[in-house]
Amino acid sequence: MKPIPTRTVERLFRYGQLLHAKKEAGAEAVFSRELAQAVDVSPEQVRRDLMNFHLKGTPQQGYPVEQLLRKLYEHLETQAATKIALLGVGNLGKAILSYFLRRRPNLSIVAAFDTDPEKAGRVYAGSQVYHISQLEKIAARENITVGVITVPAASAQQSADLLVKAGIRAILNFAPTQLQLPREIYLENIDITLSIEKAAYFSRKSGTDRRHGK
Amino acid sequence: MKPIPTRTVERLFRYGQLLHAKKEAGAEAVFSRELAQAVDVSPEQVRRDLMNFHLKGTPQQGYPVEQLLRKLYEHLETQAATKIALLGVGNLGKAILSYFLRRRPNLSIVAAFDTDPEKAGRVYAGSQVYHISQLEKIAARENITVGVITVPAASAQQSADLLVKAGIRAILNFAPTQLQLPREIYLENIDITLSIEKAAYFSRKSGTDRRHGK
Repeated sequence: MKPIPTRTVERLFRYGQLLHAKKEAGAEAVFSRELAQAVDVSPEQVRRDLMNFHLKGTPQQGYPVEQLLRKLYEHLETQAATKIALLGVGNLGKAILSYFLRRRPNLSIVAAFDTDPEKAGRVYAGSQVYHISQLEKIAARENITVGVITVPAASAQQSADLLVKAGIRAILNFAPTQLQLPREIYLENIDITLSIEKAAYFSRKSGTDRRHGK
Repeated sequence: MKPIPTRTVERLFRYGQLLHAKKEAGAEAVFSRELAQAVDVSPEQVRRDLMNFHLKGTPQQGYPVEQLLRKLYEHLETQAATKIALLGVGNLGKAILSYFLRRRPNLSIVAAFDTDPEKAGRVYAGSQVYHISQLEKIAARENITVGVITVPAASAQQSADLLVKAGIRAILNFAPTQLQLPREIYLENIDITLSIEKAAYFSRKSGTDRRHGK
């Protein structure tokens, strides 16, 4: 399959989100208009995207959920597992460890790291916790390529630098701060406090169409 | 102050994010180029945004952090507290309760709700937990206007409908599913699993500029 453009990939992930929910709910078919609504594009765009996978839906029966999910993830995931490290085993870090455990078959948080020596040696939700000084060694041994940062803002840049030095190529950052990273490192930020602040702000604006965010 | 456009408001929140980090780090001044870099706009745009607040920085000394933070939040927050409800007191819900406790002076999660009768009556991280059947009553009594959804995907739409019925006007949704809401309700989605999947996907793409996400 030829390379798929980035924006299309982002839509594919969101189709996957709906498909997982459909599968969980026991549905066997999904229609292009449902996928279109979920992702806020036209049904025609959905059908063009799904032609990449040589799957045709029918107007009456839609697309088969299981088959589509499988083909989608054949492209979105590799056959090999992706190993993830989490830095910062506080409340949020522990919640992410629990939340993500066994959620996706080829993705797992194989190691967690903290500066607190009391936490090293423990296991939280299936992840062994190590002292941060072990990051490079463990990342190399386990072939870890993704990092999740759940440390306080003041420690986040240092955590990111350590991850990059350890060979990590993509970072999901929960700390409420902007990170400076080499251009080739993928970075996504989730700022929970900022999202709550925005919700509070827009809850006060009256009017007919205040739909914002994502 | 005349109304500030939505896109400007979103930048203002992100300036606030940097300013909070600066304040935490003990810095007294911030420069427009730092704010520009944090938000990925030009320093000129930053200065135009901050003219809304009748604050001028100087090239040598920058803007005063405390004063700017105060003026920014005079606009971004009301003087009155915003009350928030959280639905779904599982691992993620509990982590959000802990994480957000006392983080912003005028924002607090005053009540949490769950379908599990065992959880009702307990207190987690400063929030009283109630049975979901109490939502409308408590929301009215406490004047709750913002809802956070941390229930499983299959229960999310129902939770959102209950929040809207209870008078909530803005929702932050962590469940991995698209919600259907009236147009005037503010909605923001945070899908942690999707973000991890995207990081894993882009960690495998080689090349010089794979910077994506936010």
